[in-house]
Amino acid sequence: MALIVQKYGGTSVANPDRIRNVAKRVAKDFDRGNDMVVILSAMAGVTDSLLRLAGEMAETPDRREVDVLLATGEQTTASLLAITLKSMGYPAVSLLGFQAEVVTDCNYSNARIVDIGSNRITSLIEKRNIVVIAGFQGCDAEGNITTLGRGGSDTSAVAIAAAIKADKCEIFTDVDGVYTADPNVCRKARKIDKISCEEMLEMASLGAKVLHLRSVEFALKHNVLVYVRSSFNEEEGTMLVNGSHDMERPVVSGITYSKNEARITLKKVPDQPGIAAKIFTPVSDANINVDMIIQNTRAGGQTDLTFTVPKTEFKRALEIERKVAEEIKAEAVWGDEHIAKVSVTGIGMKSHSGVATKMFSALAAENINIIMISTSEIRISCIVEEKNAELAVRALHTAFGLDKE
Amino acid sequence: MALIVQKYGGTSVANPDRIRNVAKRVAKDFDRGNDMVVILSAMAGVTDSLLRLAGEMAETPDRREVDVLLATGEQTTASLLAITLKSMGYPAVSLLGFQAEVVTDCNYSNARIVDIGSNRITSLIEKRNIVVIAGFQGCDAEGNITTLGRGGSDTSAVAIAAAIKADKCEIFTDVDGVYTADPNVCRKARKIDKISCEEMLEMASLGAKVLHLRSVEFALKHNVLVYVRSSFNEEEGTMLVNGSHDMERPVVSGITYSKNEARITLKKVPDQPGIAAKIFTPVSDANINVDMIIQNTRAGGQTDLTFTVPKTEFKRALEIERKVAEEIKAEAVWGDEHIAKVSVTGIGMKSHSGVATKMFSALAAENINIIMISTSEIRISCIVEEKNAELAVRALHTAFGLDKE
Repeated sequence: MALIVQKYGGTSVANPDRIRNVAKRVAKDFDRGNDMVVILSAMAGVTDSLLRLAGEMAETPDRREVDVLLATGEQTTASLLAITLKSMGYPAVSLLGFQAEVVTDCNYSNARIVDIGSNRITSLIEKRNIVVIAGFQGCDAEGNITTLGRGGSDTSAVAIAAAIKADKCEIFTDVDGVYTADPNVCRKARKIDKISCEEMLEMASLGAKVLHLRSVEFALKHNVLVYVRSSFNEEEGTMLVNGSHDMERPVVSGITYSKNEARITLKKVPDQPGIAAKIFTPVSDANINVDMIIQNTRAGGQTDLTFTVPKTEFKRALEIERKVAEEIKAEAVWGDEHIAKVSVTGIGMKSHSGVATKMFSALAAENINIIMISTSEIRISCIVEEKNAELAVRALHTAFGLDKE
Repeated sequence: MALIVQKYGGTSVANPDRIRNVAKRVAKDFDRGNDMVVILSAMAGVTDSLLRLAGEMAETPDRREVDVLLATGEQTTASLLAITLKSMGYPAVSLLGFQAEVVTDCNYSNARIVDIGSNRITSLIEKRNIVVIAGFQGCDAEGNITTLGRGGSDTSAVAIAAAIKADKCEIFTDVDGVYTADPNVCRKARKIDKISCEEMLEMASLGAKVLHLRSVEFALKHNVLVYVRSSFNEEEGTMLVNGSHDMERPVVSGITYSKNEARITLKKVPDQPGIAAKIFTPVSDANINVDMIIQNTRAGGQTDLTFTVPKTEFKRALEIERKVAEEIKAEAVWGDEHIAKVSVTGIGMKSHSGVATKMFSALAAENINIIMISTSEIRISCIVEEKNAELAVRALHTAFGLDKE
């Protein structure tokens, strides 16, 4: 008798048969006496084809309107699941983002949840309804429709679980849990049974595509018990645990990589106080996230400044920096889209030294050149050439003893 | 410098090219200094394919959830038109039913507009935005999504025009106006330049598919100036005028037919007071509209009672009446789906006699059997066998002198 939030991804609702399977799965848990809230993504491929449609109408489609368009994807699956559950005799009600009172900021296409009014959901649950909620979408304070960015349905699920104080939040996807590395790249990858939120946070931000980054932030902040499971089998999946209270842990839990970034370099920037603000303020004003930053001091009061941005924002960022370079009299601006970020993550790194050395040696042994490095308490990331990404993942997976037998 | 509401139907927004055409048309009127509010239908065929999808999930899909599903159709076209207008440099904003504050009752799939809060639309217009509104949809007082029934976007348009006190409401469709008969059936049909709302009301309710019935009611009640025009040319179209202040009018303005009805007969009903209420209350409780009713008194305190219902509700109504028949001890219930209603309409009928005689003679001359008859001040309708519908229309069109030279 628990209050369970389940989220099903795009491949789990890709067609009527799969939606029927989801309905059966939800119904089974409901029949056991659990209260059920179900969050859905759009059918696999739908968001992309809607984006293509928008692209047919305009080169740079207006973001507010794109969100209105994209929101139809989850609206469709939510209504179809509710129709299916009702036809099976279950009391189901669908809610869209605005109906579920998922209030976000007004940063269209990448909005952040600021509040969830749990009243309507809770009162429906109290009447023993199965509440089916369109994921990925919300509305701002003025009632404009917003979307949460790629993978945002995970965040919808965890945030709603937090708001209604659910006993657990199960993220159903097409893989059966979190792996030590992407199994498509590294065949020796192993499923992780338990992972700390901190590690998952790093891994999600580093390209492990299993969970949306902000969903892990919500889990950590609101202490939501999250499971990542496959919707195609009954396997246990991976449990996210808060804190590192588990005794025996490997130094490194996983290897991730991401090809979603590009780097921009400003050459021979006058090395004066306030120059960094001049370079980065216009980028952040344009809502572009800067990830890594490296500054190399040259002789003669000049410096080279390199940073990475999401590949999708590369052109916009490059344009902005060309204007900045003129203003601050930097010598040149150039960009590179063909890079990848490879990272090792592990809460055990806090108390172990030598991880960086081992990483650099393993890459060197494969003749992989390191372009940029950044570190946190529980992670080390290296930017390498894009073509070396997969090789780097496999080399590091072996070097840190993660390969399965 | 007028405030203009334009509504574009499904064929006018059927693909990206046509949406671009609509955008150009709207932009042209905006550039002339007019304030523009645009109401859109879903792309032609989309509502049907969504209904098929719902039908794949359940034999009788839940109506509330079907409305959530169907609403995606107009949401898509509204966002696409706004994207297109913005990319052309025009300040466009899309609004969904709930955002435009189109408040309806909660009769899902066939909801009636009860109120439109004009504040948001008006304030957007005041800032010289082109407001693009998803037609066909609204929300009830609890914020549930509702739809207005087939053709409901016309009603959205006229109701919004009334609420914001628009100077005119142009209904763009794939025909260039209202005709004396369906040109597909009667090649001699002529376009009508001006028609009274009363006549249009009768004709719409009788199967002229150009305008949604309730849109004409709104036009009549709120004195909205409505034009029916083609989105594919610049023709003048048909103007709806309030009242019959036009001097010279033909006795009959148009011939319509409809195959959307079925009839149900209860045989040998005990002829007691209150029996009609017993027969019709359960049908109206099930939200089924009864159109014509005929009662034939038999000898021996018994009567036969025949009535018509929409074909889509035929099975439900038949089931209900079978139960009623048992209760009231009627001898039998039978139904017939293969009927058509053929009607002549004209405000001139008020002051001319002999219209009924002429109608019956024209049908008799073609050997068409009349099954039921009903009349109003400005219309006469006959139920005939379905197979005779088109022939009857052509015969009446000629008999009443409507054929073009």
